[in-house]
Formats: sequence, structure tokens, C-alpha cells
Amino acid sequence: MKYPKGIVKKEKHEIYYGNRGMALESDLNETNEYYLNRDIAVIHKKPTPITINQVDYHSRVDAVIKEAHFRIPSTTDYNGIYRGKYIDFEAKETTSTTSFPLANIHSHQIEHLKKIIKHGGIGFLIVRFTKCGKTFYLDGKDLMSFLQTETRKSIPLSFFEQRGYQIKDAFQPRVDYLNIINRIYFGGESNEKNS
Amino acid sequence: MKYPKGIVKKEKHEIYYGNRGMALESDLNETNEYYLNRDIAVIHKKPTPITINQVDYHSRVDAVIKEAHFRIPSTTDYNGIYRGKYIDFEAKETTSTTSFPLANIHSHQIEHLKKIIKHGGIGFLIVRFTKCGKTFYLDGKDLMSFLQTETRKSIPLSFFEQRGYQIKDAFQPRVDYLNIINRIYFGGESNEKNS
Repeated sequence: MKYPKGIVKKEKHEIYYGNRGMALESDLNETNEYYLNRDIAVIHKKPTPITINQVDYHSRVDAVIKEAHFRIPSTTDYNGIYRGKYIDFEAKETTSTTSFPLANIHSHQIEHLKKIIKHGGIGFLIVRFTKCGKTFYLDGKDLMSFLQTETRKSIPLSFFEQRGYQIKDAFQPRVDYLNIINRIYFGGESNEKNS
Repeated sequence: MKYPKGIVKKEKHEIYYGNRGMALESDLNETNEYYLNRDIAVIHKKPTPITINQVDYHSRVDAVIKEAHFRIPSTTDYNGIYRGKYIDFEAKETTSTTSFPLANIHSHQIEHLKKIIKHGGIGFLIVRFTKCGKTFYLDGKDLMSFLQTETRKSIPLSFFEQRGYQIKDAFQPRVDYLNIINRIYFGGESNEKNS
């Protein structure tokens, strides 16, 4: 085994610095676990990218990272496979009631999504407006068309309502975004209504 | 912007604990960069999974992780998209001259690869025998057939030579594994010879 005893298996206390206390992330983790357990899709959140400066190897079986920094991600947070298609997305919450600030997404994440779409993958955003409790799927193609035609630094809620798909909160799965993908990419039926 | 100044952009000093000093990893990073820059494929290494125990937020713009542990990965290290197909693999080096010890791969990584194949993705291993300097592509289907029929705790070099594909070292790209995928999955021509 390459891994020492110092490794902690469960990630109970994991902190995602970029998204501290993000309920959407927790909902998506549960949703992805639901998909995985039912063999519907294999989609995971990537680990938080960090740069490690100092590791204490005081014993070979118990390594402790003593100093590290958070790093700007070069890709999106989530990817995987569904019905043979490559899936790739970023999920964000905003407290704004009127629009989603584009500063929440790094420019290389946008570039990454663009490339994914070009190579035949399904790329999108999931954005939750926490104040009104609405969660939207915005397809990457619609995001790109917004960025090409608009000079605004935020995407208005109305754009999500017109071009996006609302994902209704549910018990299981919490945020059923694959239902939207079924509709857009697989001509599938759905119980969800676009608000 | 959600990210504070404390974030370090470049990963010059990144340590991958599981693979300290692994030349194969460095070769693969260069290879993936080559693919990315030429718009051939979008394949990235996932960040090292860690569990963060303590973060020093002494100023909001300069967060430092003060204690963290390495975590056992639940998926493979590399994934992405190539010619519309989902790509997923694990890369390992061994100093053994005769066989690749299966203890180098976690059981949930094997399970992960199995699921990827089932869902229509391309899953595989890249294994380098450092002593003889040979690097092999072993398709996930061949790995699974070995695991089903063999009880051995290591995969002999001869199995790699018979069922795998040797990836010859080159200048650019360093480890051209997509060339093998072209042959297996896309009926493509190749200059590589199966040793």
C-alpha cells in the first residue's frame, strides 16, 4: 500500500474554501451519490486544488501537511459520465436576488467549458439564487451565447428563467440535473417544469 | 472574486504524496498539456485529495492551511474527454522487473474503472516498469478479465506485453496514450508497435 496510516478515509470535516457553507454543494454531493448508488451515472466532485508547501513525515506512516495554500482551479469542480456522454459543470450559489455575478466563475473555467462543448461533452452551470431559493441549470451553449452577445458582468435572473431550466428541490435526488440533461440531450420525458 | 490573495496560482512545489518523484506523472502532465494546447483532448489530473483540519484565516485575503491529511482517492487520478468519449485512467510506476503489484491500486479505483466502462467510457491503466524503462497501456477490459480469471496479487510483465500496448517514449508528446486509444477504439493508424 502506498498510503500511510495518517490518511483519513472519510471527509467529514472537509472545508471547500471557495464555497464555505455552500448548501448547494452538499445537495449535489448527495445527488451524485444517489446517481452512483443506483448506477445511473458516475459523477464526482474534484478535490479542492491546493499547493503543498510543507509536509511533516515525522514517521513514514503518519504524514501531516503543515502548510498549504488554496489554488485557483483550472477546470470546473464536477465531471463524470452519463449515458456514454462526458459531463462537466460548475456549481455556484449567489445571494443576489437579481443576477449572477460572472466574477464567481474564473475565466479559465469558462474556457474549459467551451473546450468541453467543442469536444462533444455536455458542459453547464448550476446556479442557486439562495434568497429566492431557485436553482437553475444553464446549458454551456446558452452561457457562451450570453457571453458573446452581452457585455454585462452578471447574468440576470430573467436570463436563467428564459434560457435555463429550473431544478426543483426534491428529497431524492436533491438536485436532479440529469433530468434536465435527459430533456435537452436525450429527448427524454420529465416531470420537471421550466419555470 | 471568491479567492483571496493567499492563493498560489502555479503548482511548482506541489507534492503528490502517493507518487513522490514519479517521472511518469510529470511525463503525463506534459502529454496532457500537449493535447490541450493542440486542441486534441481535454484531460486533466485531479488534485490530490486531502482532508483539511485547520485553516488559518488570520486575514481574509491570506488563508493558510495549517493541518491537513492525505486521503485515499475514491476515483482515478486522470479523466477528461477525447473525440467525444469519456476518458478515465490511473497511472503507476513500479520498480519490479517482473510484475505490477495490484496493491498499488485501491479496490475502489478498480470499481470506479469498472463503472466507467459499463457507462460507455474508456478506462485504462498506464503502468511504467522503471527498471526496464517500458511504459504500457492496459485497457480496462483486459484488466477486468485478468482480475476475473487470476488470483495472483500482481500482473506479470508478460501480461502487459501480450494484452497491453507499449507506449514508446518520445519527445512530444512524451507518452502518447491517445495513439493507442485511436487504434483500439477508433480503428486509427499508428506508428507505435505493440512490443
